[in-house]
Amino acid sequence: MNEINASIITIGDELLIGQTIDTNSAFIGQELNKIGIWVKRRVAVGDVYDDIWKALDEERKYSRLIIITGGLGPTADDITKPLLCDYFKTKLVRNEAVLAHLHNLYVNVYKRKAYLSEQNIKQADLPESCTILHNAHGSASGMWFESQNQDREKVIFLSMPGVPYEMKKIFTEEALPKIIGTFGGYVVAHKVLSTFGMGESLVAEKIADIEQALPPHIRLAYLPGYGQVKLRLTGKGMDKELLEKEMAGPYEQICTALKEISIADNDDTLEIIIGKLLQKQQKTLATAESCTGGYIAHLVTSVPKSSSHFNGAAVTYNNNIKEKILGVNHETLQTEGAVSESTAKQMVAGALKQFDADYAVATTGIMGPPSDNDEKPVGTVWIAAGNKNKTVTKLLNLGYDRDRNIQSTAQQALNLLRKFIIDCGEDSK
Amino acid sequence: MNEINASIITIGDELLIGQTIDTNSAFIGQELNKIGIWVKRRVAVGDVYDDIWKALDEERKYSRLIIITGGLGPTADDITKPLLCDYFKTKLVRNEAVLAHLHNLYVNVYKRKAYLSEQNIKQADLPESCTILHNAHGSASGMWFESQNQDREKVIFLSMPGVPYEMKKIFTEEALPKIIGTFGGYVVAHKVLSTFGMGESLVAEKIADIEQALPPHIRLAYLPGYGQVKLRLTGKGMDKELLEKEMAGPYEQICTALKEISIADNDDTLEIIIGKLLQKQQKTLATAESCTGGYIAHLVTSVPKSSSHFNGAAVTYNNNIKEKILGVNHETLQTEGAVSESTAKQMVAGALKQFDADYAVATTGIMGPPSDNDEKPVGTVWIAAGNKNKTVTKLLNLGYDRDRNIQSTAQQALNLLRKFIIDCGEDSK
Repeated sequence: MNEINASIITIGDELLIGQTIDTNSAFIGQELNKIGIWVKRRVAVGDVYDDIWKALDEERKYSRLIIITGGLGPTADDITKPLLCDYFKTKLVRNEAVLAHLHNLYVNVYKRKAYLSEQNIKQADLPESCTILHNAHGSASGMWFESQNQDREKVIFLSMPGVPYEMKKIFTEEALPKIIGTFGGYVVAHKVLSTFGMGESLVAEKIADIEQALPPHIRLAYLPGYGQVKLRLTGKGMDKELLEKEMAGPYEQICTALKEISIADNDDTLEIIIGKLLQKQQKTLATAESCTGGYIAHLVTSVPKSSSHFNGAAVTYNNNIKEKILGVNHETLQTEGAVSESTAKQMVAGALKQFDADYAVATTGIMGPPSDNDEKPVGTVWIAAGNKNKTVTKLLNLGYDRDRNIQSTAQQALNLLRKFIIDCGEDSK
Repeated sequence: MNEINASIITIGDELLIGQTIDTNSAFIGQELNKIGIWVKRRVAVGDVYDDIWKALDEERKYSRLIIITGGLGPTADDITKPLLCDYFKTKLVRNEAVLAHLHNLYVNVYKRKAYLSEQNIKQADLPESCTILHNAHGSASGMWFESQNQDREKVIFLSMPGVPYEMKKIFTEEALPKIIGTFGGYVVAHKVLSTFGMGESLVAEKIADIEQALPPHIRLAYLPGYGQVKLRLTGKGMDKELLEKEMAGPYEQICTALKEISIADNDDTLEIIIGKLLQKQQKTLATAESCTGGYIAHLVTSVPKSSSHFNGAAVTYNNNIKEKILGVNHETLQTEGAVSESTAKQMVAGALKQFDADYAVATTGIMGPPSDNDEKPVGTVWIAAGNKNKTVTKLLNLGYDRDRNIQSTAQQALNLLRKFIIDCGEDSK
């Protein structure tokens, strides 16, 4: 099989200092994977001429597609473009089409200035030997260089700016078609199963035999998240139909073994799954959030068109507001406290009423870090989901890390809600 | 100067497929930077024996501290531990202290099972020649190996699990003190200036002369975010006092040149800055969010102790709810629409009243992707901030990307609020 490897080189001191988290590599990895190209290595280097040069030299030994992001901004610490000229023995030439694009961008679109500065104009100077890839969203063009490796095979170097939304547009619209044209060939197939509520090692024990029996061209990956473990079967072959047939058996076995904890036969997040369930039932949702502070509403509204099934949220961060907005009983707050099963239930009832919603989910808990005023131990959280007929609740005992507790509570609450919505849908049949 | 470089090797197919975003490297980079160790290279490789081996061989040429994360989980795709035994010519030996820790973890803490499985027990088998670093939060121990490079200098290999909160605990509590003990020496100093509202290239133009004049041991980095650009001066030297004196001049010049757009002389996010302002004024905040869907409330409540200055939020995702919860005028919604200056102002007023807050911020807009029902062009957003005496507003024209629009709107709204709170504080003096 004509196997093509890729390397991703990300350039920038900010990546090494740790001020920027590298999301570009993940995006590129996903997109290449879909067209059957494995990313073999990812390397990050600083804005240092020699380090970048060495990385280019090294990665061309491993891979025939080398994707470089970053180092193309207009600021003085960016040295990638002159370096690429030296590396490919070419020189910078002003490109009039890019210059016109820059003029349009800065003067007409951004409306920030009446004319281009010297620094802006320099972005139209590009290496003569490369193919220029249009950057619709920004000023730094993509660059496509063709070269060879030690075996005289074609090697592609693709350089793109590091700003994620500029890079994504260049990569998907300009570069991907050229990559497919250059290295076509074998096919890759994926099957995903998303599970919730069991740790990675227990999941692995349950399907150890199935994994052991996989042929070498089909791989299983475990992708853990907050409360979730995604299982991803990836196969490579020459014949798509045959490959899918080979994968169907093990995939069915995995689904059967993990039936009780599976939440989707695809990559859908809980908020997407819930959105689909609500659409199907033509029902609406509201959230009543104390300790999650609006994070569940944020997740639900991150899904396009969520306005058709989401009515709103009340974030009630102190007791008075819980009483006033959600009608939680003063007595309950005094005797059982804000972090109690009764409060969580009453928050659900209040949200259903105030937001005219069919379903509601509520959270109330102590997120940490620990303080003297905590009414219960840090990590104590009550979650609840309900409709006008019924409310279910769950007590969580989490750790001390605020961010992690917010994430975990949101995921647990969404899963409680998911199960509740499914049960209600089945009851009404 | 005794300069120590580090390399970070992250192991895992999930990183190369792009299913997991690598946040560990950013964390490690930040922590090392604080103690004066530069991360020279970061490399990610898959769960492939040869690729990991080659990465170890290669990075020991560049760096004297090699930090490996991932590949230690209990699932079958993890091959790092046997590989490390081969690489350092040692063998696995069962460690009784680790076994006791595992027993406590699974049986007493997780309460998931009555006894350890074979897979669990294997995690107590560790290379004989390494120093074991205790993993308080999990089952895979950290491993510290001492070796040498081609120049017979000491090289440290540190292997840790990839689960972020386990890794962070091992790294900060177990590994960092050993790293400082092994490579001490020179000092590093940072000065940060956070700015808001001007693009990276314009910022760079404004301070080009200052940057040009920096000595080689002081570097300037631009760290752009949504609406923000952070400027970070980093200096290295042997004498902390002298270094700070050398950096003070250029830092002051940068502060003066960017006076109008600076928001903090440190790394503080807008939500932290606002929290501090509110604490100082002893005032409270509420949010009224339509298009940001609770994301501003989430940011504000991500800050520990925010309950002392944040009362709550109303996420009003349809017109009825805007009327009912926030008292937005039916007439206004009919004639001017939900996405209008008047609606944004009334949302502020409603939030102030309903949540008994001193300040409120509101957002209403079309986030995309485009649909047939849009009342205004996608990207049209009104934001408002106010108190009982006054409300300020701003119209944003954003793009088509939903995630980006939510992020940008939240940041712009927080900055509008920040300026408003500062102005109010000065008026009351």
